[in-house]
Order: sequence, then C-alpha cells, then structure tokens
Amino acid sequence: MSTVSSSASSPSSPTLPLATRADSLVGSVIDSSTSMLAEYTHDIVKFGMGAPAPDMLPSSEFARIAKSVFSPESFTYGETQGEPILIDALLNYLQDTYQIPEEHFGKRERIVITSGGMQGLDLGFKLFVSPGDLVFCESPTYTNGSATAMSYEAEVVEVPVDHEGMQVDVLDEFVARAGRAPAVIYTIPTFQNPAGVTMSLARRQKLLDFAHRHNSVILEDNPYGTLRFSGDDIPSLSQLSPNDPLIFGVRTFSKFVAPGLRIGWVDVDPDVRGLVINAKQTMDTCTSMPTQHMVAQWLNEGCANNHVDHLRGAYLERKKSMEAGLERLFGDEIRSTDPDGGFFLWVTFEDESVNTEDLLPVALEEGVAYIPGPAFSPAGAFTNALRLCFASNAPDRIDEGLTRLRSAIDKYRPPHSRARH
Amino acid sequence: MSTVSSSASSPSSPTLPLATRADSLVGSVIDSSTSMLAEYTHDIVKFGMGAPAPDMLPSSEFARIAKSVFSPESFTYGETQGEPILIDALLNYLQDTYQIPEEHFGKRERIVITSGGMQGLDLGFKLFVSPGDLVFCESPTYTNGSATAMSYEAEVVEVPVDHEGMQVDVLDEFVARAGRAPAVIYTIPTFQNPAGVTMSLARRQKLLDFAHRHNSVILEDNPYGTLRFSGDDIPSLSQLSPNDPLIFGVRTFSKFVAPGLRIGWVDVDPDVRGLVINAKQTMDTCTSMPTQHMVAQWLNEGCANNHVDHLRGAYLERKKSMEAGLERLFGDEIRSTDPDGGFFLWVTFEDESVNTEDLLPVALEEGVAYIPGPAFSPAGAFTNALRLCFASNAPDRIDEGLTRLRSAIDKYRPPHSRARH
Repeated sequence: MSTVSSSASSPSSPTLPLATRADSLVGSVIDSSTSMLAEYTHDIVKFGMGAPAPDMLPSSEFARIAKSVFSPESFTYGETQGEPILIDALLNYLQDTYQIPEEHFGKRERIVITSGGMQGLDLGFKLFVSPGDLVFCESPTYTNGSATAMSYEAEVVEVPVDHEGMQVDVLDEFVARAGRAPAVIYTIPTFQNPAGVTMSLARRQKLLDFAHRHNSVILEDNPYGTLRFSGDDIPSLSQLSPNDPLIFGVRTFSKFVAPGLRIGWVDVDPDVRGLVINAKQTMDTCTSMPTQHMVAQWLNEGCANNHVDHLRGAYLERKKSMEAGLERLFGDEIRSTDPDGGFFLWVTFEDESVNTEDLLPVALEEGVAYIPGPAFSPAGAFTNALRLCFASNAPDRIDEGLTRLRSAIDKYRPPHSRARH
Repeated sequence: MSTVSSSASSPSSPTLPLATRADSLVGSVIDSSTSMLAEYTHDIVKFGMGAPAPDMLPSSEFARIAKSVFSPESFTYGETQGEPILIDALLNYLQDTYQIPEEHFGKRERIVITSGGMQGLDLGFKLFVSPGDLVFCESPTYTNGSATAMSYEAEVVEVPVDHEGMQVDVLDEFVARAGRAPAVIYTIPTFQNPAGVTMSLARRQKLLDFAHRHNSVILEDNPYGTLRFSGDDIPSLSQLSPNDPLIFGVRTFSKFVAPGLRIGWVDVDPDVRGLVINAKQTMDTCTSMPTQHMVAQWLNEGCANNHVDHLRGAYLERKKSMEAGLERLFGDEIRSTDPDGGFFLWVTFEDESVNTEDLLPVALEEGVAYIPGPAFSPAGAFTNALRLCFASNAPDRIDEGLTRLRSAIDKYRPPHSRARH
C-alpha cells in the first residue's frame, strides 16, 4: 500500500491506506479546466473543452420530449446493457444513415449502452489491462483515455502521430525495444483528439495486422466519426475487421447530440459483451434512465439526420473561420493541422521556446481559453503546442478569441524578444 | 494475463488477452434479475429488485420540472465533482431536515456527486483496494458491493450479521486468523441490505475503534438512512466520527427519490475528495447533467420532505402487510427480520433443505419474484433464505405475491415430503 499525508487529526491514522493504483490517478487537465473556468467572471472565449456550442445542443427538443416520454419506468432501474428501446433506435439510425451491411455495425448482441464514451474506455481498460501491462497510445493523445489505462497501472507508451495518424510502422520496433507486445493499443483513428488528423486506410490495415500478430486489443475510440464535413469516408477499424474480438469499439452521443447526457455505447464481440456487462454492474448498475428514454425518442422521431447535417455545415464554417483567423493573425509563426471533421485544430508554435502552459494565464486574463499541448501527453511533451476547439463558438466569437490569443502571445513574449522568459 | 475461449474465428487470436481481474468479474445476480424478468410475459409480483414502487416515483413532477429547467447548460459537460446547484440544494436539504450540526454532514468540500451509490462504491474500492487486500463485508451482504471489491482483486471475508448488525466482536479474531487487517470494511449499518437489520450504537462504536486501531477504511454504504419508519434514530458512522479520513460515506438519491436517475454522492475527507475527483474523471467525466438539474430543482422546490414522509408511511404499511401475510401463510415454517426502515425482509426457512435457488423457477412460474439467499454471499451461503422487497408493491399485491409464493413452495416441496429433492 502507498500512503499519503493526511491533514486530519485522527491520532491512530496519520496516513491513509491507499491502494497502489492511487499513485497512478493523475487527474485530468482537460476536465479540471471546466472547474477552473467556472471561477473566472470576465468574458472568456472558450476554445478549451471539446464540447459542442450551446446553440448546437437540442435542449428545447429534449424539454419537449421529456414532458411526453417520462413515465415511472423512466425512473426505476433498467437493464445493465441499456434500454432495449434505445439500442433498437440506435441500430436503426446507424443502419439507415450509413447504409452499411449489418455485420459492419453492431448488432444488438454486440451493444452495451454506457455512461458516456468515458465509461466505454473505463470498461475496455478494466477488462484488458493488468498492472504493468503495456498500453500504446497516440502522441499527442486524449489523456483522459491514457489516464484511465494508468488507473489500472498500465505502462503507457506514446507512439508519434503525423498527418496520416498514428505512425504504425514504428510499432514493431517499440515491441522489440520493450521486449513485449502491448495489451491494448488505444487509438482515435478518425478526427483524432487533439490532432484532428485521420489515420489513412493503409495504416489502418497495418494496425489490424499488428494487433492480430501480437494478440493485442485495439481500443478504437470513435467519438467524432459522425462529424465528417469534407473529404471521403474511411472505414473504421470495426468496419474493416467486422466481428473481430480484438476490436473494442467505443462510441458516444456526446459529440453529435449532447455531452451532458453522458450516454455512449460499446460495440464489442458478444463474448466480450458478457464481461462488459459484469464490469458495468460494478460501476453504476445501469446508465441514467430518463436520458436514455429521451435519446431513444429523439432518434425515433428522426431528429438525428437534420441535426447532424446542421452540425457538419456549421463546424466546417467554423473550422474555416478559425484557419483564416490563424493565418491572418499568426501567419508563419504557427503551423496547424487541417481536419476533415471533428472539433479540433492542433496548433504548434514554430518558436519552440513558446511554452503554452506559461502562456495560459496570460490568455485567460485576455479572455481566451485553450488546452496546452502537454495536457495531451502522459510525458508532458508538446510544450509549444495547444489544442483549439473550433466547434464551440460561432465565427465572430472565433475571430474575437483569436484576436485575444494574439494579444496574449504579444504580452507573454513581445515580438523579437525572449527577455521575459 | 488470463484467457477465455473465444467463439470468434480470427486465426491468430484464439484467446482474448484479458486482464487478471477479469476472472474476478463475477456478475450480479441482483442486476441480472432485471434482465431475466424482462423476458417473462405473464404477471409477476416483483419482490426481487430493491426498487421503489412505480407509484412512489415522482415522474410527473420531473416531467414538469424538465420542461422548465432544461437549458443548453443542462446538456454540456459539467464539473466532475457535480453541479454546484445540486450540491448546495442537497446540503440545504440535509441540514434543514435533520438539524444536525454542519460538521456531522458533508460540507461542500467533502461532497462529490456520483452516478448512483454504485459509483460511490466503485470509487471507494478503486482508491483503497490493492490486489490481494482483505475486505471485510457483512454476511449476508449487498454482493454488488463485494463484487466491486473483487473486481479490484480483493480477498473478501464475510463477517456474520445478527439482529444488531455486523458481529464486530469477531473482527479481531478474523484479523488474527488472516494475519493481517482489512484494507476496507464494507458495511451497510442502517436497514441493511438484504437483512434489514440496523447496527446497534455499541457496535458502531466498537467498529470505529477497530478501524482506528488497524488503520482500515470503513466504507459506509447508507442508501436507506432517510427511510426510517419506526424506532429511534441511530447516528451514522459518519456522524459518530465526523471529519474522520477513514470513513468513506456513500449515499444515494436512488431509494428516497428514484433509482433510474443514477445520482448519488460521496461524503469524504477533503484530502480523499481530490483523489475521488481524479478517479471519477477516469470513469465518466461527470454525472448526467439533465438529471442533476432536475433533482436540484426538485429539492429547491421543497418536494423532498413531503415525499419522504409519504414514503415512510407507505413503507411501514407495506412492511406490516408483508409480515402479516408471512405469518398467516407460512407461520413457523419461516423466520423473518423486523426492520425499522428501508426496503427488505430477510426470510429464512426453518427447513434447511429448502433451496431458494431451486425454488425460484417454480416461483416465477407461479408469478412471484424474489432474490435467493446465496445472491447475498460471495461464498454462496444462505441457501434456505431469500430477500423480499416490501417497498415495491401495495398491500393487496403483497398479499397476492405471498399467496403465489405459498403455492410455489407447496409445488416445489409438497408438505411432509422431501421426495422431490
């Protein structure tokens, strides 16, 4: 057991008998930013959290739906695997919209409704990571995912990402160096968080080959897949290798409906699903019932297609606004990724001495929030990078936010001078 | 890594690379009963699940409230520790209703809103149980709690329960026998699940003394504490030892408001709270936002006091009906506990050859559901006992259900004959 000092005065318990894994509970810079921003009272343009804009959330539709669908059954315990009415509505939506053969998307016996995509990650790592196991993740990555792996005492290894996604060619070298294969490869192949890049088809096939050779599980985190606004579709890993027990698919309603619902799903081999259900019983019994009933009704009313079309149009416009603003205000001081969907631009300052963690308090003072690059690396790399969410603000607010960011960088580091740092 | 056979046909992955803890994901008989019952089409009186009756759920109030409180803020990410408006409403309710000095209940810096009491248990065991650690639980116990401890590879030890709750006098002997102290003592001291008994004040004080001597954490699961309908209040362990870092208090809205909400809270030392927040970030980011906003408004409108008064009156009446029915129909064939609150009677057949797992399919065929005794013991004890929830049905349905149970036992084992088993 590890111990921490306690400020409490109980004479016989100077230290708490914490589990060994408590040392690995590193906390989330991303989530903490929600609490941190709540303490500021002046106007801040929020490019930080990966959340849809308030005007993109169907809250009035849900208020109407709540009044009609809430019944006592919406408030009692439900099945751990999720409400049948929601699972059916979801499968109908996926099949009608994407016109993909049934086996490529989940069938009912492959689906468990989860409390957000985050619980999908918790379930996957809880099932497949023993203490000391290797987990390969992307670098940069969504560190709430890698932190969950670490909460089960994984040893996380960062694999570089370029414009084609995870550099899967280096995986065998990483295995040779470690002397063992990863238990889990954690990837966000489509509109990656935070880099915005999409893994190429060739790399997806190489990754599948790697996983099969080493009997490693691929945890495919796909929160943004429905939000492509340009370019051609690339099949998900789940679609490329249907019915593959090594692919643990994690999906969510957070990005194309609303994150506050905390509803997602996992799409897994039926044998794995039984274990997922057992594991979820030890987590929260079942997912919130009133929200499951609301989303089922929203899908059954056919609200999703119009809504997603609207999101795609709006997010493309917002991405273009942000790219134009960055070009106008920062020119060749920065380079940025150019995503075909999702929420994020990943911006890197050419001047490697720019430290985006040091810049953040200046930016907040100026009235703009972002997430610093090191928040996306378990090792704290990417000190001169930052993540900007273009989805959360309309174009005029994006311009205002970028103007404030320009002002912040000028205050933080006057042009042609590094004297302040 | 342990492995399971997989029915999938991927040539290079005959077995799944499961984590060692996957062997310990035993599944919940209690939760599975929800799915099992959904498959029956004939009328069944449900004494199984520990859920409030449909007519005790304020679903129409919530439909009204949803329409007025839902805003875009109800559908985006919230703070991991919970919505401030809900935490304030909760603390006001607890303080106004129970008139207990502030330090005896949680202060804001002690509270984290959780996704049901179940997530509170997951958080507690995740923070305090390393693989191989001892966890003491009650026998019988709420096995979803002990299963969560086992999911972190705890070695669970069952401590007998009598009419005064956990037999704390035997704890030191158990420590001597094991050669080590428990990391966690998991207890439901008030209106215990499933036994319905309440730990006496003397035993509570002995349990606190034991925990302090051994630096063991007490995970105090208190879902029913608000539902006393007879007898005198006994302070919770949290109240008896305020600001004690060794007490991890788990509470929930499930039993006095509605379980489908999946909202609970933990009441812990502020130092522990920081770790709870980090751990919850790896589980679900935050608890469902629309339901948090609904419950905050429900509390702020003052709905809770009338509702809880109504529940207490109804549940006392229902308990008396069930006791009278058992006396009338089963006489001295059984003995039952006599709770002062909560949801459950624990019924033991004097004939030890009665096997309540074998009886269950007969009972379901007759149209009555219960949970068999072994579901409340990790070791599968209590084969001649069963749990009856009196809270879920009105008195006339209780009579009907018990008549069907009488009929089931007669069919399962004709009077004066054990020939069939």
